[in-house]
Amino acid sequence: MRVAIAGASGYTGLELIRLVQHHPELELAAITSEQRAGVAAGDAFPGLRGLVDLPFESLDPASLAGRVETAFLCLPHGTSAAAVGPLRAAGVRVVDLGGDFRLRSMDDYIRWYGEHQAPELFGSAVYGIPELYRGDLAGASLAAAAGCYPTSALLPLLPFLREGRVATESIVVDAKSGVSGAGRTLADGYLFAELEGSPHAYKVGGVHRHVPEMEQEASVAAGEAIRLSFIPHLLPITRGMLTSVITRPRQALTTADAIAVLGEAYRDDPFVRVLPEGEFPTVAAVRGTNFCDVTAVSDERAGNLVLLSALDNLGKGASGQMVQCLNAMVGLDETTGLLLEPWLP
Amino acid sequence: MRVAIAGASGYTGLELIRLVQHHPELELAAITSEQRAGVAAGDAFPGLRGLVDLPFESLDPASLAGRVETAFLCLPHGTSAAAVGPLRAAGVRVVDLGGDFRLRSMDDYIRWYGEHQAPELFGSAVYGIPELYRGDLAGASLAAAAGCYPTSALLPLLPFLREGRVATESIVVDAKSGVSGAGRTLADGYLFAELEGSPHAYKVGGVHRHVPEMEQEASVAAGEAIRLSFIPHLLPITRGMLTSVITRPRQALTTADAIAVLGEAYRDDPFVRVLPEGEFPTVAAVRGTNFCDVTAVSDERAGNLVLLSALDNLGKGASGQMVQCLNAMVGLDETTGLLLEPWLP
Amino acid sequence: MRVAIAGASGYTGLELIRLVQHHPELELAAITSEQRAGVAAGDAFPGLRGLVDLPFESLDPASLAGRVETAFLCLPHGTSAAAVGPLRAAGVRVVDLGGDFRLRSMDDYIRWYGEHQAPELFGSAVYGIPELYRGDLAGASLAAAAGCYPTSALLPLLPFLREGRVATESIVVDAKSGVSGAGRTLADGYLFAELEGSPHAYKVGGVHRHVPEMEQEASVAAGEAIRLSFIPHLLPITRGMLTSVITRPRQALTTADAIAVLGEAYRDDPFVRVLPEGEFPTVAAVRGTNFCDVTAVSDERAGNLVLLSALDNLGKGASGQMVQCLNAMVGLDETTGLLLEPWLP
Amino acid sequence: MRVAIAGASGYTGLELIRLVQHHPELELAAITSEQRAGVAAGDAFPGLRGLVDLPFESLDPASLAGRVETAFLCLPHGTSAAAVGPLRAAGVRVVDLGGDFRLRSMDDYIRWYGEHQAPELFGSAVYGIPELYRGDLAGASLAAAAGCYPTSALLPLLPFLREGRVATESIVVDAKSGVSGAGRTLADGYLFAELEGSPHAYKVGGVHRHVPEMEQEASVAAGEAIRLSFIPHLLPITRGMLTSVITRPRQALTTADAIAVLGEAYRDDPFVRVLPEGEFPTVAAVRGTNFCDVTAVSDERAGNLVLLSALDNLGKGASGQMVQCLNAMVGLDETTGLLLEPWLP
Repeated sequence: MRVAIAGASGYTGLELIRLVQHHPELELAAITSEQRAGVAAGDAFPGLRGLVDLPFESLDPASLAGRVETAFLCLPHGTSAAAVGPLRAAGVRVVDLGGDFRLRSMDDYIRWYGEHQAPELFGSAVYGIPELYRGDLAGASLAAAAGCYPTSALLPLLPFLREGRVATESIVVDAKSGVSGAGRTLADGYLFAELEGSPHAYKVGGVHRHVPEMEQEASVAAGEAIRLSFIPHLLPITRGMLTSVITRPRQALTTADAIAVLGEAYRDDPFVRVLPEGEFPTVAAVRGTNFCDVTAVSDERAGNLVLLSALDNLGKGASGQMVQCLNAMVGLDETTGLLLEPWLP
Repeated sequence: MRVAIAGASGYTGLELIRLVQHHPELELAAITSEQRAGVAAGDAFPGLRGLVDLPFESLDPASLAGRVETAFLCLPHGTSAAAVGPLRAAGVRVVDLGGDFRLRSMDDYIRWYGEHQAPELFGSAVYGIPELYRGDLAGASLAAAAGCYPTSALLPLLPFLREGRVATESIVVDAKSGVSGAGRTLADGYLFAELEGSPHAYKVGGVHRHVPEMEQEASVAAGEAIRLSFIPHLLPITRGMLTSVITRPRQALTTADAIAVLGEAYRDDPFVRVLPEGEFPTVAAVRGTNFCDVTAVSDERAGNLVLLSALDNLGKGASGQMVQCLNAMVGLDETTGLLLEPWLP
Repeated sequence: MRVAIAGASGYTGLELIRLVQHHPELELAAITSEQRAGVAAGDAFPGLRGLVDLPFESLDPASLAGRVETAFLCLPHGTSAAAVGPLRAAGVRVVDLGGDFRLRSMDDYIRWYGEHQAPELFGSAVYGIPELYRGDLAGASLAAAAGCYPTSALLPLLPFLREGRVATESIVVDAKSGVSGAGRTLADGYLFAELEGSPHAYKVGGVHRHVPEMEQEASVAAGEAIRLSFIPHLLPITRGMLTSVITRPRQALTTADAIAVLGEAYRDDPFVRVLPEGEFPTVAAVRGTNFCDVTAVSDERAGNLVLLSALDNLGKGASGQMVQCLNAMVGLDETTGLLLEPWLP
Repeated sequence: MRVAIAGASGYTGLELIRLVQHHPELELAAITSEQRAGVAAGDAFPGLRGLVDLPFESLDPASLAGRVETAFLCLPHGTSAAAVGPLRAAGVRVVDLGGDFRLRSMDDYIRWYGEHQAPELFGSAVYGIPELYRGDLAGASLAAAAGCYPTSALLPLLPFLREGRVATESIVVDAKSGVSGAGRTLADGYLFAELEGSPHAYKVGGVHRHVPEMEQEASVAAGEAIRLSFIPHLLPITRGMLTSVITRPRQALTTADAIAVLGEAYRDDPFVRVLPEGEFPTVAAVRGTNFCDVTAVSDERAGNLVLLSALDNLGKGASGQMVQCLNAMVGLDETTGLLLEPWLP
């Protein structure tokens, strides 16, 4: 199956190039980048020399139409919406990483992002976490891969909400992200000399755009509207995301019980690894992979249930998830091309 | 005033050497280290060449007695308690960094640490956060400097507990520490190749020894017993600590109101800097200093009040705090020798 | 082809596990580790959960004999030599990463390493840089994969020595290594808190064990005995090696000419990427791969020719090279299983 | 003595603010920054809150004239030259960090930098390495503080050139710099995600602007024109510089002899620490300080003498050196305000 990657010179796009190269059923047919159009991949990124022969090209949905069956979009929101229409019209399957098609409510979209660029398509995408929407993804032609923060919070949290095990108020998500999540953005705060050794929180207080997405899916799972507190952090690491979700159990729950809930929920999900009691997720174990490691700790003294997860924000938090979505959409085993090992060390 | 540093070759001891050198009223008269006894400071640590002329010596309270007025103890708990008696008997003022004298309840001590090595002295120390116990420290002869995690959590939290602004249940402390907090410990997890890029939580679920200390002081402030959830993390940074404290306000509180509570509480505390709305604490701003930067964000959507702090675990979280305690004990201006700037960058 | 990895829990062993999993012709049949014998790979290294099912076992050449055709040895020198005999006697092909079989002169071996543990086998191995000894490796049953420093220095240097383009005296190798090259060694200098931000040279002055290996191969290429200066450095990075080789050209050489010499020498070597004028090797471009990027700069003002290279010390500097050697030994295309992309970023 | 720092919001300017605050004889009277004019220091850099009360102002030499006796200039070259005239005309002593006044030959200046902005002042500055030009600095009113690379190479090298101990051809300088040397420059290569783990060489081949400065001073010391090879590297560290200088001794020299040459040369220079045999410079030992640690290793096998140094590119490589120059100019003990300890760790 021939695929294109739009926005291929950004960090998520480069990771997709790597994943597509490993995928036995995919053939990389086109890569687009407005900034690097006309430049060979290996000239723009010396690490790709001898591995990828394609040049970057400018994004032209019409031109892609005849050449690929699927397009992965790693584009700024808005741009993404504008590209989906022509691609879909030309019969190209789309896996989008932008925020344009993740929300179910147009009101929410407008509040958090502004006007939508393709309102006629709004609502036509499947939310792209295969562990949640595997059935809907099968045969779908447009998937909106979930964001990194939502994936890291929802995977450990939803099983407890679905079963009504935890209170729906007072949920707190304290998340820590690697800086590649911000893309190749030229701003003081992303400079090595400024970020090294200096983690910090940002956009605290319910103002990060991933909030509505988390709340939407948490509400679906709980069957009632949920508002949660989200505290994102930037860490001096390149890849990886670590998340604590703190909840209040409705009835006392031991750590073993809580881990069993996770184990049961993800019994058939190879990319969600439930860690045994006494082990905590680390970024090293998931870096470069499509895994999300999760576990639970019952803090019975204080009456809280702490859920922990780790994933690679460019893997299960972005590009890996996109490939997993595609696998689910076209009926491949979801692990196809994705059982990659982390580098140790 | 002549001072000794016991355990001076560890990270907190080395930081104390630096601080004592900057302090206009202190003279470094002795440094002890069992491992490096007999070695000149500059031979053991080339960075000290040309700056510190003393050799390390083995800890001998009797020998110190005549030579110093004050001893800073950076010793393993237990060892610390055993040294305090002889030093106090000889009239030496002691600022201890161990856990031996921080708790008020012997039951708690035994539960968390085991048998006490100097029960006759238990209860005779002042808990060493000058912002809380300034009055008690004045003239005191034994201070138990608070731990890094408790300091980072208590400073932003206590003003709200004291005024009854937040609920006393469901308090969550999600803290992130630099690896120097673990000392120069030879274990796989502290190796560069294992920790670089790989943050992780540890000792989650109310099992970290700093929990009773945090709860003790939170309970005093609230006037009722408090149990809180503590989620410590290890980050791939050398120095620094970042803490989120999540609470539920009893009555709606705006961010401005909450910051005003902090501003009022620390109006006369030069080392607690209250950040204005829109700014978040960073490790870079406090690294190498005795500052604790704090702020508050009201997450009104979700009904939570998020408190954030940053400090240097070797500064305000350890050695800086010890010097500040001593300043308070002997009646010096608390900032004496401590208004050091962070390195930028 | 079934393979065993001996010493599989060290950094080079873990990297081999990853590479063998990617290799279409290899099946991982046994992994040994004295420290972790009896432990499942995924329990010892959570990153391997869901990917590697084998348990570690204690090294027993007799037991391996019937189960694998090839053994990769990532063992301390000495240990390695002792294992090779039984394995070879049992007909197992061996790719060794130790220093035991890299030298041609027993005198040199004894001077640099001490007594040899299997003198009867000394001299029976092929030096494991396929770009140099491809022909000898074909059909060989014992390869001694070259060290990381020698590979990084020899690949850019040898073409100039072979053609007599540079003087054979005054060659300087200034090399910078990631800390994974030291293995999972518990020593102060490898702790995150000690190494972060603090690169330094070590073993300067012709005392590093990789010196005789570099000089041996340089002498072969030049046709005369060569002594070179080697200045190894430890950098605060986990993986990667950057090397400058400074030589004096016998006749004026432009940068373009020098790059052409490299281009010609490695025309048919897919893992040696010759960078065009104006580009310099970076670790990011080779990390996680089997590539060695090289280039040359003629410093005509000063009359020197500067050769630069970058490789991953665990890739082309160790485990990748071992797999490439095996491919060459058994007649597979050398790139089989090895065309992996670096993570970007 | 009241001082101004022009260009105070850059990395070298911020470091100067820190050093001036430590200096018992200096009073910080003005800080300039075009980008941050009108902003209080603590608002622009939260780390300075509670420590520095001044606002940044736009650079206006006339306005500074009456307010300060000395101006430290941390300005882009060209800008620097334009400011020196008015400041000098107004009787303000100047310590300049730019390249404008470091070279002795106008031809060289034009070749490497282009047209000079204040040719009438060219030649009137003292080259700012007090260890070399202490006598000329005394009473001088314009010093051109040396660059970081030249300082790190010249301090270990010059004693051997002065005594004719090493050959004047084939000198190689392989230097490794922290990224703060590039300032707060917004370019891809300085982003955390691009630089972390990825050291690399740049501007190899005699094209870096610090080359003429190194050659100028080396030539003065040797009494003959010297051309050397310079290989600068960027390392993933924020502060610090590590340099190897490789030379060929004219007569055999042991390591002890070579170290004795250094010891003799710097007997009265407190900021040049000569390390004993067996120790190598590390960045950790000099970070945040004005020290330059040096040593020598005789590689008798290969006939080379290897000189090694470490300094902080913002300390002895920039702002520390500027303060040391000022101390020398006004007759203060050179160590005044500069005997700061590195952070350990």
